[in-house]
Amino acid sequence: MSKKAKVNAAILIIGNEILSGRTQDTNTSTIATWLNSLGVLVGEVRVVPDIEKIIVETVNLLRKNFDYVFTTGGIGPTHDDITAASISKAFGIKYEIHEEAFKILEAYYKPGDFNKGRQKMTWMPSKANLILNPTSGAPGFYIENVFCLPGVPSILKSMLGGLKEKILGGEPIKSLTISLRTVESEIANSLTKVQDDNKDVEIGSYPFFHAGKLGVSIVVRSEDQKKIDKCSLQILKFIKEKKIEIVER
Amino acid sequence: MSKKAKVNAAILIIGNEILSGRTQDTNTSTIATWLNSLGVLVGEVRVVPDIEKIIVETVNLLRKNFDYVFTTGGIGPTHDDITAASISKAFGIKYEIHEEAFKILEAYYKPGDFNKGRQKMTWMPSKANLILNPTSGAPGFYIENVFCLPGVPSILKSMLGGLKEKILGGEPIKSLTISLRTVESEIANSLTKVQDDNKDVEIGSYPFFHAGKLGVSIVVRSEDQKKIDKCSLQILKFIKEKKIEIVER
Repeated sequence: MSKKAKVNAAILIIGNEILSGRTQDTNTSTIATWLNSLGVLVGEVRVVPDIEKIIVETVNLLRKNFDYVFTTGGIGPTHDDITAASISKAFGIKYEIHEEAFKILEAYYKPGDFNKGRQKMTWMPSKANLILNPTSGAPGFYIENVFCLPGVPSILKSMLGGLKEKILGGEPIKSLTISLRTVESEIANSLTKVQDDNKDVEIGSYPFFHAGKLGVSIVVRSEDQKKIDKCSLQILKFIKEKKIEIVER
Repeated sequence: MSKKAKVNAAILIIGNEILSGRTQDTNTSTIATWLNSLGVLVGEVRVVPDIEKIIVETVNLLRKNFDYVFTTGGIGPTHDDITAASISKAFGIKYEIHEEAFKILEAYYKPGDFNKGRQKMTWMPSKANLILNPTSGAPGFYIENVFCLPGVPSILKSMLGGLKEKILGGEPIKSLTISLRTVESEIANSLTKVQDDNKDVEIGSYPFFHAGKLGVSIVVRSEDQKKIDKCSLQILKFIKEKKIEIVER
């Protein structure tokens, strides 16, 4: 298969604890960074509550609009873990005990410890593909282009490695960051000119405050290193003219 | 005005830097926690790129479906700051220099320093209501139920205080957390029974790993303290029966 120029993904964070502000999501950043390295751009993130109807509708919308969808959360053993049932409904596939997952968890727990709560984690859309979990046993799963991962960040991280071959990305997205000792308004006009001259390159400007000093990071992103280099030269030119200090490059 | 039983909000995070994984969003948690204290539940969060068409469509959908919408990001001086222009388009309102904002920033900067880049931050939907910025001068704004805040977390935080009176919340959401030395699968069935018996209370179960030890936090949320108390008694009952250690309550 040849690589597509642009491959995109959506991330769907499932969980009331994120919406209430109680828990700080960090999975978006983890998944997005990993996808970028595979040449997949994240086009949208949504956080939704533990409500079946909303999960079903959102999954069906996102899997139609994006090449890949990654969900996090809601695949544990408790009553508020309804992702697997919701995904089954979204695809119109039977929700039942997954034999392979059952065998994995039966072997994982001590005899007698594989109780009903733990068995719930083997209920999945029928014939789903498993995503192995080297940290805590209970696998995630995927169907077509929808990948379902747990919400606990350390477990999620440990499961991404095994997924690499399942993702057909485009050209990896390259980026260049130039951090300056300046404020955005000093470089805004010059940066606009560079962006106008390089329309298909993504140029972002991000103020930062570090070690008591203000600064701005300019981030240039593209699949094409030559385009980044061209932008970079134009940016360095106006930085020199304006006598702005470069903090990091 | 009498308080509504349920008041909800959506948060719209605008910015490629969140989608690329480069920047960790923390504004969702800040805004959600603050809204909860005012009796407003966050029903959905979306992260979208700096693309006008997507921002316009998303704002128009969310402002119809939710009592309040909070946007973050894209109101600075650079070319990638397109929130104010996009909001103008979403509402069909002229995008122009806001006289009051202009006066504020003209007075904020030293004479001669109020350059074109800085003046861009005074371009807003015509007659927008300003949200004052005690940190760095440049105001946010709101129109009808859509509140536009900056992306820099410390500046955003400093602006929320002044907004409190603009939000008509419902009954504040109360919550109770019971943290246990157990794993989810040990309590899953008992907790399901409590949830079934208290359908209009939100009961969440969240595994944690702290100081080398596993645990589970049960979080009970409702506007009605009596309902929380009833749930709490039922939960404490099964905890005692199962001889599970309470870590924190």
